[in-house]
Amino acid sequence: MKNFTFDNVSITSGYLYEKQNLNRKTTIYSVYDRFYDTGRIGAFDFDYNETTHDISKKPHVFWDSDVAKWVEGVAYIIKKHPDKKLEELADAIINKVKKHQDENGYFNIYFTVCEPDKRFTDRNAHELYCAGHLMEAAVAYADATGKTDLLDCMEKYADHIKKVFVDDKSAAFASPGHEEIELALMRMYEYTKNKKYLDLAKHFIDIRGSEDDIDRSGYNQSHMPVREQTEAIGHSVRAMYLYTGMALLAAETDDKELFSACKTLWEDTVLKKMYVTGGIGSSRSNEGFTTPFDLPNDEAYAETCAAIGLMFFSDAMLPFHNDSRYADVIEKVLYNGVLSSLSLDGRSFFYENPLEINLADRAKIASISQRTLPITQRVECFDCSCCPPNINRVLPTLEKYIYAYEDDTLYVNQFVSSILENNGATAKIVTEYPNNGDVSITVRGFEKIAIRIPNWCDTFEINKKYTKENGFAIVENDGDEIKISFDMTPRTVYADPRIKDVAGKVAIMRGPIVYCAEGVDNGGDLHSFVIPSVLKPTEKFEKNFGLFTLEVECKKRIPFTSDLYSNTAPKTETATLKLIPYNCFANRGESDMTVWFCGGHI
Amino acid sequence: MKNFTFDNVSITSGYLYEKQNLNRKTTIYSVYDRFYDTGRIGAFDFDYNETTHDISKKPHVFWDSDVAKWVEGVAYIIKKHPDKKLEELADAIINKVKKHQDENGYFNIYFTVCEPDKRFTDRNAHELYCAGHLMEAAVAYADATGKTDLLDCMEKYADHIKKVFVDDKSAAFASPGHEEIELALMRMYEYTKNKKYLDLAKHFIDIRGSEDDIDRSGYNQSHMPVREQTEAIGHSVRAMYLYTGMALLAAETDDKELFSACKTLWEDTVLKKMYVTGGIGSSRSNEGFTTPFDLPNDEAYAETCAAIGLMFFSDAMLPFHNDSRYADVIEKVLYNGVLSSLSLDGRSFFYENPLEINLADRAKIASISQRTLPITQRVECFDCSCCPPNINRVLPTLEKYIYAYEDDTLYVNQFVSSILENNGATAKIVTEYPNNGDVSITVRGFEKIAIRIPNWCDTFEINKKYTKENGFAIVENDGDEIKISFDMTPRTVYADPRIKDVAGKVAIMRGPIVYCAEGVDNGGDLHSFVIPSVLKPTEKFEKNFGLFTLEVECKKRIPFTSDLYSNTAPKTETATLKLIPYNCFANRGESDMTVWFCGGHI
Repeated sequence: MKNFTFDNVSITSGYLYEKQNLNRKTTIYSVYDRFYDTGRIGAFDFDYNETTHDISKKPHVFWDSDVAKWVEGVAYIIKKHPDKKLEELADAIINKVKKHQDENGYFNIYFTVCEPDKRFTDRNAHELYCAGHLMEAAVAYADATGKTDLLDCMEKYADHIKKVFVDDKSAAFASPGHEEIELALMRMYEYTKNKKYLDLAKHFIDIRGSEDDIDRSGYNQSHMPVREQTEAIGHSVRAMYLYTGMALLAAETDDKELFSACKTLWEDTVLKKMYVTGGIGSSRSNEGFTTPFDLPNDEAYAETCAAIGLMFFSDAMLPFHNDSRYADVIEKVLYNGVLSSLSLDGRSFFYENPLEINLADRAKIASISQRTLPITQRVECFDCSCCPPNINRVLPTLEKYIYAYEDDTLYVNQFVSSILENNGATAKIVTEYPNNGDVSITVRGFEKIAIRIPNWCDTFEINKKYTKENGFAIVENDGDEIKISFDMTPRTVYADPRIKDVAGKVAIMRGPIVYCAEGVDNGGDLHSFVIPSVLKPTEKFEKNFGLFTLEVECKKRIPFTSDLYSNTAPKTETATLKLIPYNCFANRGESDMTVWFCGGHI
Repeated sequence: MKNFTFDNVSITSGYLYEKQNLNRKTTIYSVYDRFYDTGRIGAFDFDYNETTHDISKKPHVFWDSDVAKWVEGVAYIIKKHPDKKLEELADAIINKVKKHQDENGYFNIYFTVCEPDKRFTDRNAHELYCAGHLMEAAVAYADATGKTDLLDCMEKYADHIKKVFVDDKSAAFASPGHEEIELALMRMYEYTKNKKYLDLAKHFIDIRGSEDDIDRSGYNQSHMPVREQTEAIGHSVRAMYLYTGMALLAAETDDKELFSACKTLWEDTVLKKMYVTGGIGSSRSNEGFTTPFDLPNDEAYAETCAAIGLMFFSDAMLPFHNDSRYADVIEKVLYNGVLSSLSLDGRSFFYENPLEINLADRAKIASISQRTLPITQRVECFDCSCCPPNINRVLPTLEKYIYAYEDDTLYVNQFVSSILENNGATAKIVTEYPNNGDVSITVRGFEKIAIRIPNWCDTFEINKKYTKENGFAIVENDGDEIKISFDMTPRTVYADPRIKDVAGKVAIMRGPIVYCAEGVDNGGDLHSFVIPSVLKPTEKFEKNFGLFTLEVECKKRIPFTSDLYSNTAPKTETATLKLIPYNCFANRGESDMTVWFCGGHI
């Protein structure tokens, strides 16, 4: 199947619509302000000097990419919602890129202002990563505004990169230490149709981990040629960006070998190394993957950018086979591990997205242990602030994940009130999903409609005859409204028993939304609650969250009084556990939190 | 109640008898050999010189104490089992102490050979700790052999210490950075009846944490005056040695305020900070205590010396009230967290005693994490080798824990085949405990017999009328054999629900013995076994372990096949879980291990 571009689709109302508005009205501005405060915007003046500037504003090697992602977000926003102020801010940055780009096409703030003699000498200095993000921004901005200044610059830069890495081989390394340029070059190719970008993407993908590569390392997925890789390892954002580039290239060139590697890596990721929230990369030490089924909750790294990367990777897998699993993962990741990053006021972010917070443990660990745990409160900017502008750029393009097509079939991958218009074909979805499971779908111009039956959904009703195929309900399109209703009853969810950290535990979900309990609602010792096998929840719409909260009658184990160990199981008392959507945690001050609970019945 | 001295009692057969024989025939020699190899014995020649000696044999500040504990162990052994070779080895060391002691009484290898100008300038340099261990050895050796050379040396040293710390106040610190001398001075007092040692012990105890103390720190329990302390914090061996000294002083001086502090600290330790194995001090970072109920399994520090220290502390609490809890803890600690240190061949040791080993996790942690986990295999000697000679000295004195008395009542605190003879009174215990729950007790010379009903035991039978008091069954002594039978049926054990790391989990015990499962018997994923509420175990005596192994029919969760998360609980298959005594783990190569299991019924 193939996606429509995001501008074929309009989201018309609902939960994600509100998130888009929040990003457009608040988050995109807030991120700009913090980038301004921290010197990231000013750095584009190329006048940093240790004697005249605050040392904290010395350009960092990855600052170009932070701002590039912000510009990319602006492009998507203004394509649908013209905003003169945003456009002027972006134009100002782009003008400076144009002004300060080298004659030979090179562009990088740090390696022009701080270490001009060190260009392309350090594989881990993020030059090609920054270049990639600037290229993605350039394509988006040209597409949104018709202005090609940044794209022109980046075309010139791409030529320079080809000269250095392919023709002259004059760089000190052969493939980037942080992948990104591969997928960006594919975006350049998709937009310009100039095959030289595809060729350069292929060059970087195929040289990676080969004998011609230098300093091969699992950390950045260059430990072996990418086509031979079978396990998702190393830094998880790097991995997702690489795999996305690989999948885009494989689809474009119908490269079955490369696709096969992508499929294996995707399955290794989502079947062995993904949190129930869709978060990936469980370890802080390498910001990445560890061993299969190693998914600790309190120290979960689960970087926001990695979750977004998994959305990109899953989306890039769609063209190969019409399997609903990719859209299942996109839904899981988006609603949980991505949106958890953003505060409800749209201004603050989690870089890491833990599944458990225990303040007493943290106090101990802070004072005496070797471990560092994720922070407990979102902040507006990080020293390494890659996640905030990634939120800026992913939210305005949620439209592209909703519909896809192949031949005479329209695929409905996500359930969002929206309108599709493409060459006379139209589709309309009306729903309050994920709060309500009723979805109305009306389609013109396609013979068949394939509606994803979410993998979390055991029970649904549909007002049409259907056949089921690869996770989709296939309906013959007679032009009438299709009504499908997914059972949104909150339910207990179980993990593969190989995940040691949640053995005997259950999570609670309602539709695609993962829930958690916070200390602010439930007091301490969240591990003492015992969830029954059949939930009888009270649901309540919480306007501030935009989602339902739940109250579940359960048991809570009572502390012992006379000894620390006993031959008798702890007594329990009846207790009400209040659950909130995981993506809303930590919006009411610092608090204990957990996603997984003891399940007394398993 | 009061203990008998260990020479009033003889252990005549059984599990602990065999452990004593192992120590006497193998362990005491093996530790000497390693101390010889590493230069600890040679250091007593006081001739270390960087130009002529191997730098690895440069005396360490705590080496005196390692060898002192070994000499103390020899003393206890040869008092009952004369061994010319051991006595000669000990005499040789003692002669060197005598030869190299300063005229003013000072004795310390490091601060004579390496930094003679730095005596008593560094609180954390273990001088008073070494002095304390030499004093304990001196008392034991004089008692065993009648030879007072070492005791003479240590009396002289104690006088010097008093001069420096009390009269002249010329040391750079007021109380030791590692407690030990307090309890050692009490041992000196008990043996010599010279009150100056008691006074000096009281001085060090009362100055600790006072305004006259310097560098007050929770790490070594000097954060506040000891009488005001209510929480066991800091380095756990330091804590146990201090508390033991406090309790000995309190008992000798009938100091109710000091006893009250001891009781509070003992209860804080055993009701909030003790593993089911009796191990204490859960954190590697401070080798000590953290927050209440923080008892992680895989990174459990649970130092052998701390467990031994808890035996000493509990024993020192006995005189205050006739409460069986102290003996309950001694039994738990001895059979589990202390004996786990020693390999079955008697030659190797654990310093740390984890409750879980997961080799795959370890491989990950070794490669990428900030955490350090306990080693998985015992070794013969450590750089800091305090634990091996602590085993040497605790095993030969197990006799003293068995019986106690008050007025006309004989207390039976531990169940070990043994004979007590004291001023015409006699007692005899015949039992195969802890393998068999039948205990025969015959007593002459006491009117009443108080038999501890272990806190782990819910069911017992006794052939006499009894009343129950403070955990003891009190029987009028008619001279006849008392037969008591404790139900040794293996059982599930539960932890206080406040212990987060074992929420929903069960341990398995048989009598006082804690069990564990090893990968070598059960394969991987030990967390997938689900223990039923009623065990129907098959018991089998394992000669090599000296204890029973168990086989339990249980369920094992089956890995998912199609997804990492599911609305359906994992299916299970019937499985047999083989359990071995925890204290025998890691005797058959490197293996996964766990003490706590999922309990499907709680």
